[in-house]
This record gives sequence, C-alpha cells and structure tokens, in this order.
Amino acid sequence: MSGYHITTKHKGKMAFEAAIGHHKVIMDSIPDNDGEDTGPSPKKLLLATLATCTGMDIVSLLKKMRVEYSDFEIVTTAGLTEEHPRVFSHIEVLYRINVDEKDREKFEKAVSLSQHKYCGISAILRKSSPLDYSIEYL
Amino acid sequence: MSGYHITTKHKGKMAFEAAIGHHKVIMDSIPDNDGEDTGPSPKKLLLATLATCTGMDIVSLLKKMRVEYSDFEIVTTAGLTEEHPRVFSHIEVLYRINVDEKDREKFEKAVSLSQHKYCGISAILRKSSPLDYSIEYL
Repeated sequence: MSGYHITTKHKGKMAFEAAIGHHKVIMDSIPDNDGEDTGPSPKKLLLATLATCTGMDIVSLLKKMRVEYSDFEIVTTAGLTEEHPRVFSHIEVLYRINVDEKDREKFEKAVSLSQHKYCGISAILRKSSPLDYSIEYL
Repeated sequence: MSGYHITTKHKGKMAFEAAIGHHKVIMDSIPDNDGEDTGPSPKKLLLATLATCTGMDIVSLLKKMRVEYSDFEIVTTAGLTEEHPRVFSHIEVLYRINVDEKDREKFEKAVSLSQHKYCGISAILRKSSPLDYSIEYL
C-alpha cells in the first residue's frame, strides 16, 4: 500500500518509541499506570496532532492571504468516555491569535476552511465525537 | 470540561510545539510543503499514537497473563484519500513479536481485546476508515 508506514517499538515497561523518518518520538504512561513518564500519553499526543494539522492549514492560508499575525496557538480540550474503549466524548479546539482587526475576517475564513475542507485529522475525529471550535483574539 | 487540555504553539513557518505535561513535542512539515522538517508530520504521528495506544494495552495484558516476550513492535500503515480533507483511506496494524509458541494464543487474545475492547484510538479511527490488523511471529 502506498502512503504512510510507521514502526513503533516497545522500549520496556509502558514506553514505546516511534521512528518517523529521522525523527524519534517516545510515548509512555505515568507511574500510576505502570509507566515511567518518559514521554506523553498517546491520547494527549493525538490532540496535539489535531492542533498542528489545523494550525498548519491556517499558517499556509494566512501566508497566501498575506495576513500578518503573532502569538498563534491552539488549545485542544477533550473529555473521555467512562466505558471502554475510552474515546473522546467531545473535543473543543480554541484558536488564539494576535491579528489586526482588519484581518480578522480573513483569519476566520482560514479557520473555517481548515475545519470544514482541509484538515484531515479534524475530519477523522469528527466521525467519532462532536468537535467544536472557537476563536480568542489576543 | 474535565479531561485533557493541550496547548500547541506556532513556532514559525510550519513548525508547532505541543506542551503535554512537562513533555514538548515538535511537529513540522517538509521543505516541499514550506516546512523545515524539525519534527514529524501530524498525520504520521497520529499513526504512532495508534500503535502506542494498542501496544500499551497489550503490554499490560501480557503482564497480567505472565507471558514473556521480546522484540515487540507495531507497524502502522495507511493510505490517504486524494480529495480534501485528506483522511486515511484504510489503516493496517501489524504486530511483530518474539513469543514462545505455547503463549501465542494468549498473545492473540491480548491483541483481540485491545482491538475490540480497550484501545480508544483504534475505536476512534475505525469510525472513519477500515482498520485491519495482523500478527507476525519472529
């Protein structure tokens, strides 16, 4: 199959190391769950991949629109179901940015295009739970 | 909302840095996509979170079952759709392990419990695309 091909090795106890091209990423669980906290948990990291996926779309769109900005960050918040498998009950994506008032409409257009057209990880996660988003101007 | 709360900051060009507890994870895109390849892409990293989520279940179950093993790794392979949003068209999870023949039934039980009962990320991704798995004994 063409596409992505990632190998993730068990490193002892609850730690795993993924090789992604020349990048290595360690994940682990906390001592309460038999781990040694040598890396983030996979579900938390998944929320960071969501933030980055939509963030990259927006950076790319703002560049095309020639919009200047600073302090761009994305806060992803999620609850978990109690029953197994424990999946996200819902996800909130908060976009925080410092952008001139005249460019806010363009920023909102970029966020909307990412959320509804371009961001694959948002589209994947939305099949499993509600995913809402909001904007906070700094 | 109780649950997870992750902040991911734009670091310039296409790079983002997530703060997950005291762990920092950088993601980036390749130069062809305006990035500087300072970290993995979010979609590839998502496949590594899938591998680790199911891997952690299995490590935990094998410990309870008192099964000894070595060289445990998980290969996650996925294709992408051509149209936007580009989501996984399907996902394959290959479990590779060195385990005594007498314990293989227990290993297969652990894999099945993870895939069908415990692994939240498998359950989430299965809502969006087919997700198959297989085992290779070393």
